Amino acid sequence: MNYKLHVNNISAYDILINDSYDLLCDKLLEIYGEKFKNKKICIITDINVSECQLESFLNVISAINDNVFAFSFVPGEHSKTIYTINDIYSFLIEHSFDRSDILIALGGGIVGDMTGFAASSYMRGIDFLQIPTTLLSQVDSSVGGKTGINFKEYKNMVGAFYNPKLVYINTESLKTLTKRDFVSGLAEVVKYAFIKNKDFFDWIKTHIDDIMNLNSDALTHLIYESCEAKRLVVESDFKESGERMILNFGHTIGHAIENDCDFKLFHGECVALGMCCALYISKKLGNISDDEYESSIKLISDLNLPIKYDIQNKEQLFTSIHHDKKNHNGKLKFTILSRFGKATTTDEVSDELINEALSVLA
Amino acid sequence: MNYKLHVNNISAYDILINDSYDLLCDKLLEIYGEKFKNKKICIITDINVSECQLESFLNVISAINDNVFAFSFVPGEHSKTIYTINDIYSFLIEHSFDRSDILIALGGGIVGDMTGFAASSYMRGIDFLQIPTTLLSQVDSSVGGKTGINFKEYKNMVGAFYNPKLVYINTESLKTLTKRDFVSGLAEVVKYAFIKNKDFFDWIKTHIDDIMNLNSDALTHLIYESCEAKRLVVESDFKESGERMILNFGHTIGHAIENDCDFKLFHGECVALGMCCALYISKKLGNISDDEYESSIKLISDLNLPIKYDIQNKEQLFTSIHHDKKNHNGKLKFTILSRFGKATTTDEVSDELINEALSVLA
Repeated sequence: MNYKLHVNNISAYDILINDSYDLLCDKLLEIYGEKFKNKKICIITDINVSECQLESFLNVISAINDNVFAFSFVPGEHSKTIYTINDIYSFLIEHSFDRSDILIALGGGIVGDMTGFAASSYMRGIDFLQIPTTLLSQVDSSVGGKTGINFKEYKNMVGAFYNPKLVYINTESLKTLTKRDFVSGLAEVVKYAFIKNKDFFDWIKTHIDDIMNLNSDALTHLIYESCEAKRLVVESDFKESGERMILNFGHTIGHAIENDCDFKLFHGECVALGMCCALYISKKLGNISDDEYESSIKLISDLNLPIKYDIQNKEQLFTSIHHDKKNHNGKLKFTILSRFGKATTTDEVSDELINEALSVLA
Repeated sequence: MNYKLHVNNISAYDILINDSYDLLCDKLLEIYGEKFKNKKICIITDINVSECQLESFLNVISAINDNVFAFSFVPGEHSKTIYTINDIYSFLIEHSFDRSDILIALGGGIVGDMTGFAASSYMRGIDFLQIPTTLLSQVDSSVGGKTGINFKEYKNMVGAFYNPKLVYINTESLKTLTKRDFVSGLAEVVKYAFIKNKDFFDWIKTHIDDIMNLNSDALTHLIYESCEAKRLVVESDFKESGERMILNFGHTIGHAIENDCDFKLFHGECVALGMCCALYISKKLGNISDDEYESSIKLISDLNLPIKYDIQNKEQLFTSIHHDKKNHNGKLKFTILSRFGKATTTDEVSDELINEALSVLA
């Protein structure tokens, strides 16, 4: 089974979802024609991905192009800086890359964000393809055009909105992830069900075993529905002024928990906890029923995501919540469900209600 | 007299040309509405411009906004680096600028290029306004969306295509320039006449005194026609794949002369010399008449631009010409006139012909 999804914001591109790289070369020739063979290609990846996936990926590409170079960097957030970007620029200059050549991001979210930013700025813009290899990057950064790096202690402070020419998702690459990494990605998947697609929620509920066993058809469907939900949100609001904020469902409290646990929990785990709170608040405001709330928490738990958390410092947690970047003009913008399968933002969530929601995690 | 020009590529914006800042505040309120008053404004400029123009400009803006900050850097090409950009980011963070705030570039081409790149990348894009203060930046960088910085020894290697929200040109600021700076800018002006507008050539010819005396109406018209010519070229080819190359008229040999004289001549002066050669080549290929050629050289000379040059190292000059960035796939792409007032590119210009054209400069 393979899926194709057409994204159309600023510049249109396709997302192909498949359980192999079989269609990749055909698609590249479809996009670029015979000219593809004369272009220089630079695969940008991190050392972990490089070890387990670069060689097989190179074998695929080298069937139609023999000008392929690879640049690997040390994995992790601390590499996501202008210094690594400078190293990428230097590498491209050294190998005489010009504006007609192509970068390929092979890896997770950090690889994608950095490759995208390098591509947006090298010679004022060069094409890039995205081959996301983690579940989180497949369902999150495939759509939306966000690229970026950290600046000093500020996350994603520098970047651009810049779309890839193609996103190719090979579900097989999920088999190289640890279970915890995979499960963490499921938090964003189930988020799309909550905020955009009630039927998808029901589908996940009845396919938990297939998902956990990495069944290829189930993964393909799950990634497709996630990307499609994000596409619907992003296309109505590419530059993130309003509607796109519903993607922050679970993230305001989630980010605060990330800080509270000193990043010992994964991003998706914190988002799961944040969603538990946001679901509770949605229920208390009368937007979803008790049954919907209970079955939501059960699904999060059934996916092996945490629903309980021991808060280290509640006062600091509140400070974080109020300092979240979604907090505009002094008022906290909070994303809740307006009904099951649909989200909205409100500045009417009181600290008391947040406090009550947090106590549900205990 | 004031002119308004509407540019429409990727994002539309207006260019206002006037002999004061009288219309600026009205225009800003028209674009942003009452919200403008609550936005933070950062004027980015260099120390030279800052000394002679910042105060009067601040007086204008502060009539409608009292959140104005200013960041000045050391003028010159050596400041056009990622380090200055980092200083700008730090300054913006320090003053809590977010994506809804505004940068204003007040200065020449370097200020505009750098402010534009900072704006394109700070928090993935923040608005910027361009207030070009040199003739070159008014007629060249007002249209085209090019922003950028140098990387190592490579000029404009890093950047983005990113349009301002408004360009406001105050012809009075030209009175702060040295005569040589002003005249250097005229090279690009007369270029537009050669490549795009025969009538404009005739107009310049009959208005030389007004232009040299900085007559406000003449300057307004001259800037308008230049921006309009560039707009026509750029709108048909925003990302510089084909048509936009005609803007390089005079630049291939011009850049090589810049290197040959070790940058002792100004950019516009070198472009004037390059245009003399390109006009000669256009004549030799039978595209323009002897009369057209002679009156073109005379106009360049009447504008106080050089038409003679003593080449330092002809061999190196040829190497530069062939290494020019417009040189694709091993063949030299050369911009010539296909007839008077219209340009084209060709890879059919032989080294012998270039050599002959260069000898006309002797």
